[in-house]
Amino acid sequence: MKSILVIGAGFSAKVLIDYLSKQAKEKNWNITVAEQNLELLEYLDIPKIKLDVTDDQARYECIKNFDIIVSMVPAKYHILIAKDCLALSKHLFTASYISPEMKALDNEVKSKKLLFLNECGLDPGLDHMSAMKIINDIKDKDGEILEFESSTGGLVAPESDDNPWNYKFTWNPRNVVLAGMEPAKFLENGQYKYIPYHRIFQWTKPINISGLGDFEVYPNRDSLKYRFVYGLDNVKSMLRGTIRRPGYCKAWDGFVQLGITDDSYEIENIDKMTWRELIASYLPNIPEKTLEDIFCYYVGIEKNSPEFHKFEWLDIFTDKLVGLQKATPAQALQHLLEEKWKFGDNDKDLVVMQHKVIYHLNNKKHVKKSSFQYIGKDIKNTAMATTVGLPLAIAVELFIEGKIDKSGVLLPTDPDIYDPILEKLKDFDINFLEVDEIL
Amino acid sequence: MKSILVIGAGFSAKVLIDYLSKQAKEKNWNITVAEQNLELLEYLDIPKIKLDVTDDQARYECIKNFDIIVSMVPAKYHILIAKDCLALSKHLFTASYISPEMKALDNEVKSKKLLFLNECGLDPGLDHMSAMKIINDIKDKDGEILEFESSTGGLVAPESDDNPWNYKFTWNPRNVVLAGMEPAKFLENGQYKYIPYHRIFQWTKPINISGLGDFEVYPNRDSLKYRFVYGLDNVKSMLRGTIRRPGYCKAWDGFVQLGITDDSYEIENIDKMTWRELIASYLPNIPEKTLEDIFCYYVGIEKNSPEFHKFEWLDIFTDKLVGLQKATPAQALQHLLEEKWKFGDNDKDLVVMQHKVIYHLNNKKHVKKSSFQYIGKDIKNTAMATTVGLPLAIAVELFIEGKIDKSGVLLPTDPDIYDPILEKLKDFDINFLEVDEIL
Repeated sequence: MKSILVIGAGFSAKVLIDYLSKQAKEKNWNITVAEQNLELLEYLDIPKIKLDVTDDQARYECIKNFDIIVSMVPAKYHILIAKDCLALSKHLFTASYISPEMKALDNEVKSKKLLFLNECGLDPGLDHMSAMKIINDIKDKDGEILEFESSTGGLVAPESDDNPWNYKFTWNPRNVVLAGMEPAKFLENGQYKYIPYHRIFQWTKPINISGLGDFEVYPNRDSLKYRFVYGLDNVKSMLRGTIRRPGYCKAWDGFVQLGITDDSYEIENIDKMTWRELIASYLPNIPEKTLEDIFCYYVGIEKNSPEFHKFEWLDIFTDKLVGLQKATPAQALQHLLEEKWKFGDNDKDLVVMQHKVIYHLNNKKHVKKSSFQYIGKDIKNTAMATTVGLPLAIAVELFIEGKIDKSGVLLPTDPDIYDPILEKLKDFDINFLEVDEIL
Repeated sequence: MKSILVIGAGFSAKVLIDYLSKQAKEKNWNITVAEQNLELLEYLDIPKIKLDVTDDQARYECIKNFDIIVSMVPAKYHILIAKDCLALSKHLFTASYISPEMKALDNEVKSKKLLFLNECGLDPGLDHMSAMKIINDIKDKDGEILEFESSTGGLVAPESDDNPWNYKFTWNPRNVVLAGMEPAKFLENGQYKYIPYHRIFQWTKPINISGLGDFEVYPNRDSLKYRFVYGLDNVKSMLRGTIRRPGYCKAWDGFVQLGITDDSYEIENIDKMTWRELIASYLPNIPEKTLEDIFCYYVGIEKNSPEFHKFEWLDIFTDKLVGLQKATPAQALQHLLEEKWKFGDNDKDLVVMQHKVIYHLNNKKHVKKSSFQYIGKDIKNTAMATTVGLPLAIAVELFIEGKIDKSGVLLPTDPDIYDPILEKLKDFDINFLEVDEIL
């Protein structure tokens, strides 16, 4: 049981592939990468297969020859690979959220004694593992958890943080443009909170991360379901969030207020449009007011504010052409931001995570903060690729070595899975700093 | 070619069925109604069939025995009926928008010389017919149309208008709660406008309808595509709108701002929740502020405003139980509104429509307004059921009599279709009042 197939070798797969290749060489395993665009892999001295993951027959034939499959393809394709793995009795590892279709395979996966380990990257992944470690440590001491907050962000390192948004694309730009496009659900002081997309970026909370300064957090998707996943059924507050630098959310909310993050329809005549014209399509016409004034009024910002400066810096009020033949508003915005928020060849990225837990222990109320930060080495070995890839790669390594022995469609919330992974991650400076105070 | 099957006998089908039954009796046609809930039809002295429209075999066997099918079922089921009609070479009439699936049948329908006439009720229906009549009249005189606006509303008659929303349910409540939930697209002074759902109810324009007073209009769906449907390819402004009484939209926007019109997820523990608790789930907690104050601040209204009074009148700040075992927020809201906005046994409803066309003719700029209003007779013969049902029933009548002779998947934008229908509608006081002024 030592032959590994990694399917997909995009941006976030590099560190994973490098790590597993090195292990394979040392420990005499086989590793192969299947990818549509083999140019991505020229530097690598391991077997490669050209594969279109949507080609059912080719995919099946390819998977047949390996014991362990690591899927790094876009999330919607995991289920195709999962069904082949089930039919062929192969183990599967992914860094993506468990879809309802994936979850539905659980019984069959278990009965074949296979492991389909998902949500084992950064977020989801490292967040689950580090959260569960804190939660189980408190429970082991008979503590009672009252409030739980967990936030993660992929940002730029301070030394590369040189634009007014304090943001660059360090992962899939499309996901950034479409972020938050489902109602956020969480629990606050025993009250359910349901926040529609058009208000999510207004629901920020400030946080501070030691040595890095101030950030803000907006609520990320459905936090309610993690009460049960984390065994916190009776918790009073439960929030999972996404971290940005202060001011990002208020400005991004301007795009949401316009409606220009919509991906459901194409703009007519976009091939001839300037950014100024496109922005005007989302604003009312008010006589004797400039477009800039109408914009500020409509999205609720001041003209001489840091938020307005962010928009100006994007050139959206200029006669710059959108420059696409066909596009949804979201695609047009992504195209602009890919230029403006480009991660430069010499840039370094930053991953931050913080858990905050309020709990009762021995009649005292505690607050525990556990934080993690990681700065990328270079444009190829980014913090994002490292913190997504290493937890998953180490999970595969430990599984091959028999140190993880589970079956079913799982995420890493069991100490038998997360303990050895977290321990091993310390060797790579992926380490949490804990502060515990009595309130 | 004289046997008619009407499928579906809900609220808006009554006038249609009554009209066609009377015609059938006088002219020796056959008419049958197929409906799941036969109790709806007890008063009717015509053949009835119990039919579940989703039962493929039963539906096919039923359709087989008739020449002309009138589909009054919910819009999503039309395509099932349409495919049977195509297979069995039957003509089809509906009052619903042509779906892409329906449109795709056009070639086959034409080659079989069948007529599938859709969008032949009120809105869509009477709006298209009356708009096309104005447009073609102006074009026939070599006029050039610059701006086109068309709006329709289903409201309560002034004598029954006794709640602060000036609104009651005179048609499908679910459609009212979910109204506007796609981006509105229109053209204003040569500029495209794309309005996201969360801003649509802020984009109102005032209008006045002679004898009835002031109303407001919010943009309705995709007006852009009707440029081509109406032959107005070069028009500078093009807007289709929905009419409400002034203040309705600003208040309804409050629900949209909360996010409580969402139909995509269920609220946890709704069976135990009060309305005050449910509203709190959509608001931030602000210390030392009442829920009412937070609500006003969050949705952008004044505490002593007519809008706030509308919300108070709905009891949403009270301990009234939501009273459902399971519900999405939209379902909970609909349940409340079905009680508060109930159309009473003695109430009368109102349908209003107004077209406004600005055009050049002989070097002069004109504005033409064409308006129509209709007050329902009683709770069964509502204005809504009459203005949806009569155009469609008359289309069927004229088709049987050979006065409409077309084939394909059509809507009533051709004078050969709309002229005889509009003419006949005058016998029933469905008549447009035109005012033309030089600007």
